[in-house]
Amino acid sequence: VSKTVSSFELVLKGRQPHQALTNWLYGELCSAIVDGRLSAGSRLPGSRDFAAQYGISRGTVVNVFERLQAEGYVSCRVGRGTRVSEGIRLTVPSATNPLCQPSYIRRAASAYKRPEVFVDWVVFKGRRPFQMSDPAVREFPSRIWGGIAARHGRRFPSWLREEDDGRGYSPLRNAIAQYVALSRGVKCDADQVVIVSGVQQALDLLLRLLVKKGDPVWTEDPGYFGACIALRNAGAKIIPVPVDGQGLSVSAGIKLCPKASGVLLTPGHQFPLGMTMSLERRIEVLQWASSAGAFIIEDDYDSVYRFAEQPVGALQGLDRNSNVIFVGSFNKLLFSSLRLGYIVLPPALVDVFVGHRRQTDFHTLSLDQAVLCDFIVEGHFGRHLRRMRDLYASRLAVMIDAGHHYLKGLLQISGVQAGLYTAAFLQNGMTSREAEAAATARGIETRALDRFTLRRKDPKGLLLGFAAHDEKAIRQGLGGLAAALGG
Amino acid sequence: VSKTVSSFELVLKGRQPHQALTNWLYGELCSAIVDGRLSAGSRLPGSRDFAAQYGISRGTVVNVFERLQAEGYVSCRVGRGTRVSEGIRLTVPSATNPLCQPSYIRRAASAYKRPEVFVDWVVFKGRRPFQMSDPAVREFPSRIWGGIAARHGRRFPSWLREEDDGRGYSPLRNAIAQYVALSRGVKCDADQVVIVSGVQQALDLLLRLLVKKGDPVWTEDPGYFGACIALRNAGAKIIPVPVDGQGLSVSAGIKLCPKASGVLLTPGHQFPLGMTMSLERRIEVLQWASSAGAFIIEDDYDSVYRFAEQPVGALQGLDRNSNVIFVGSFNKLLFSSLRLGYIVLPPALVDVFVGHRRQTDFHTLSLDQAVLCDFIVEGHFGRHLRRMRDLYASRLAVMIDAGHHYLKGLLQISGVQAGLYTAAFLQNGMTSREAEAAATARGIETRALDRFTLRRKDPKGLLLGFAAHDEKAIRQGLGGLAAALGG
Repeated sequence: VSKTVSSFELVLKGRQPHQALTNWLYGELCSAIVDGRLSAGSRLPGSRDFAAQYGISRGTVVNVFERLQAEGYVSCRVGRGTRVSEGIRLTVPSATNPLCQPSYIRRAASAYKRPEVFVDWVVFKGRRPFQMSDPAVREFPSRIWGGIAARHGRRFPSWLREEDDGRGYSPLRNAIAQYVALSRGVKCDADQVVIVSGVQQALDLLLRLLVKKGDPVWTEDPGYFGACIALRNAGAKIIPVPVDGQGLSVSAGIKLCPKASGVLLTPGHQFPLGMTMSLERRIEVLQWASSAGAFIIEDDYDSVYRFAEQPVGALQGLDRNSNVIFVGSFNKLLFSSLRLGYIVLPPALVDVFVGHRRQTDFHTLSLDQAVLCDFIVEGHFGRHLRRMRDLYASRLAVMIDAGHHYLKGLLQISGVQAGLYTAAFLQNGMTSREAEAAATARGIETRALDRFTLRRKDPKGLLLGFAAHDEKAIRQGLGGLAAALGG
Repeated sequence: VSKTVSSFELVLKGRQPHQALTNWLYGELCSAIVDGRLSAGSRLPGSRDFAAQYGISRGTVVNVFERLQAEGYVSCRVGRGTRVSEGIRLTVPSATNPLCQPSYIRRAASAYKRPEVFVDWVVFKGRRPFQMSDPAVREFPSRIWGGIAARHGRRFPSWLREEDDGRGYSPLRNAIAQYVALSRGVKCDADQVVIVSGVQQALDLLLRLLVKKGDPVWTEDPGYFGACIALRNAGAKIIPVPVDGQGLSVSAGIKLCPKASGVLLTPGHQFPLGMTMSLERRIEVLQWASSAGAFIIEDDYDSVYRFAEQPVGALQGLDRNSNVIFVGSFNKLLFSSLRLGYIVLPPALVDVFVGHRRQTDFHTLSLDQAVLCDFIVEGHFGRHLRRMRDLYASRLAVMIDAGHHYLKGLLQISGVQAGLYTAAFLQNGMTSREAEAAATARGIETRALDRFTLRRKDPKGLLLGFAAHDEKAIRQGLGGLAAALGG
């Protein structure tokens, strides 16, 4: 239904049903001028020709031209015809100074706080010791994963009509329920499992639901920075509770704030110090939560890797009272760009959580969920975990051994035998940040332990990732680190 | 390092480094009892045998047994040995009444509000007229999509190390930038594009960043329910602004609240009434936003389908002042379980938004992003849109034509020639809800228009989806609807 005015090659869009001719023509010409399709100075056909071209009465065209002239879009001079105004100032606002942003952007920018933990957070390109964000992706069985993905691709028509109630791909939820029951002692069935993109989305969604502005929540000090970010975004009052060799000190928490709404814990492998929460502390925290009606979010980010002994079971497995919400992720176990994790909810919280979650993104399906499901069900996941457990154990052993050799008197590597990284404590008098900066200057990536503290004073140490680095890289890195730390 | 006590087949986990023998043994036995691995009444070996089995001094074993006895875990009677207490009450709290939930769950449940729009929202199983949530998935070129997915699966190793800065798969962002520029007149480059799961996640993320508690925001009345949900969750004060034949009444908005922080609009195809916002209104709203420093979130959910004329360009294309944030989705264009949409941000907002977004889920990659990217770049997307535009136009024509035939005097189907659904207005005196209930009773899915109103009185009409239903289904559905509405 488009009509072209040949003299200026303008496509006018068809008229809407019920739209008045005058409004349509006015709108189309306005739009062409605003869009620049009719450029400044170009000539419009005479009203008589124009009317004939479009089969409109000449009176309508004259009306529109007069309106355009009155509003400054076109000008009309004897002998020059009707032309688009030169140097037309659009009625659409135009920023005179590009540096002058609208105030909503200035408000957002000033309200947005970059988390302090990330200030001067240097990430080197390439895989360098002792980066701790990735597992050993070179060891990932990518052919197997790719084969499953290709198979799911070919079977795509069946996936097309997958339905999701906000919890994610149902066969994957079954596989996860079995996996966490077997390997972590979590008590659950698939109905309680909700797929998310990882621990951070789990915390963000949970805390938005569970916390009202100003509600006090305990968190480990030092602790996982993502937990603090999610707590702050949810408006919680963060209650830093000190961590000792047995994990979070429940008695200290009770002294600080007995009526807290909940607590965020990493009982399997404390972030960043690495110890496991003792059974006594586990029972203490369950008792407190039960009497306070509080939630415990158990962040089980990498507890499945424990080298010297069997993994310690999940706190959730001891809970008889629906206090514990269990959160896990595959991103650190398989590869970081996977973006799949899960929440195991107490049965009574499932409906409310799913309703709440649907309000934030409606659905959660992705083809990756189907691929991961088969990867687990066909046994590849278990095999990969066992291979990585051996590999990481040997890499950690190299690190501890070489650490004794290179770093004696400078840095004491923690004896914790778990996870993808280890804490190491400075013996050379440097603060955590001084040591991190010295390492960075030599191209070695570490994380200062005091980045993860809240009230606690600097634990004077570094986090060193070992999982993604082979023996040679670890030895070289430790050599460099020794030089950086003044060895 | 595990040791088995054969007499009761108990696996004791290895001792942690630095853990005292007594603590270890106590913890292990506690744990076995709490876990039920040592069941009530079962007999422990004598302290002498036990000590010999584990190579521990008998004194240690006696100490632990005494501690367990003192705490009630085990009991000791002459002639019966040491046994796990009968009817042991775990020190782990146990809900006496399963209906008695912890208070954090009760608080979450009472704070959670099911959006009113969904109350009695009946969804029939199977594809029935006039469901409006899905496009015509039977027509989706699933072999082509599946072939691309299979190819990406085989190429998986390259994907394994994909990096993401929080905006999503970079080649897909390029493809989207080109698509929205060409088909919607959006002015942007790929740096401004952020991948999300759809319109709802876009609104949720944007409003959490842009709105502080109590900030007034205009929204269309009637309007998109998801917008109200996201506004409420962000704590905004919702300012319902009436919609007329030209779209949102900017002058009414200015009267109601001139200093609003922003506005949520569906200018391309107003939800639910279907009209396009006129150019005059577009310029009015841009002028208001510019002078108020306000944001305009342009929700372009299905504007690409316009049957009687070319699509109307995006409001974003007229913006010269960074007021407009453009939001779109592929879920309604391809298939609902895809879960991919995008935001086009003003350049000055990109860094802040990406920082904010990373705090909620860190990364956004998925294999589907790579598949969609090739689907667009290889031209399948454009072809599919053109095919669907023709198909939907013919289905809408059937609906209007058959509507005249079956529903004369009962229901007037709107003349709007766009989108995947149409509004229809009751002429039989029924309210929207009465009509919806009557249709539901005959197995016909419609949505009462008053579900989408805020202050506005019942527009007395229904939404009818046509995109996913063939001619026969539409005719049958309209016949049934006529009977339901008293024809």
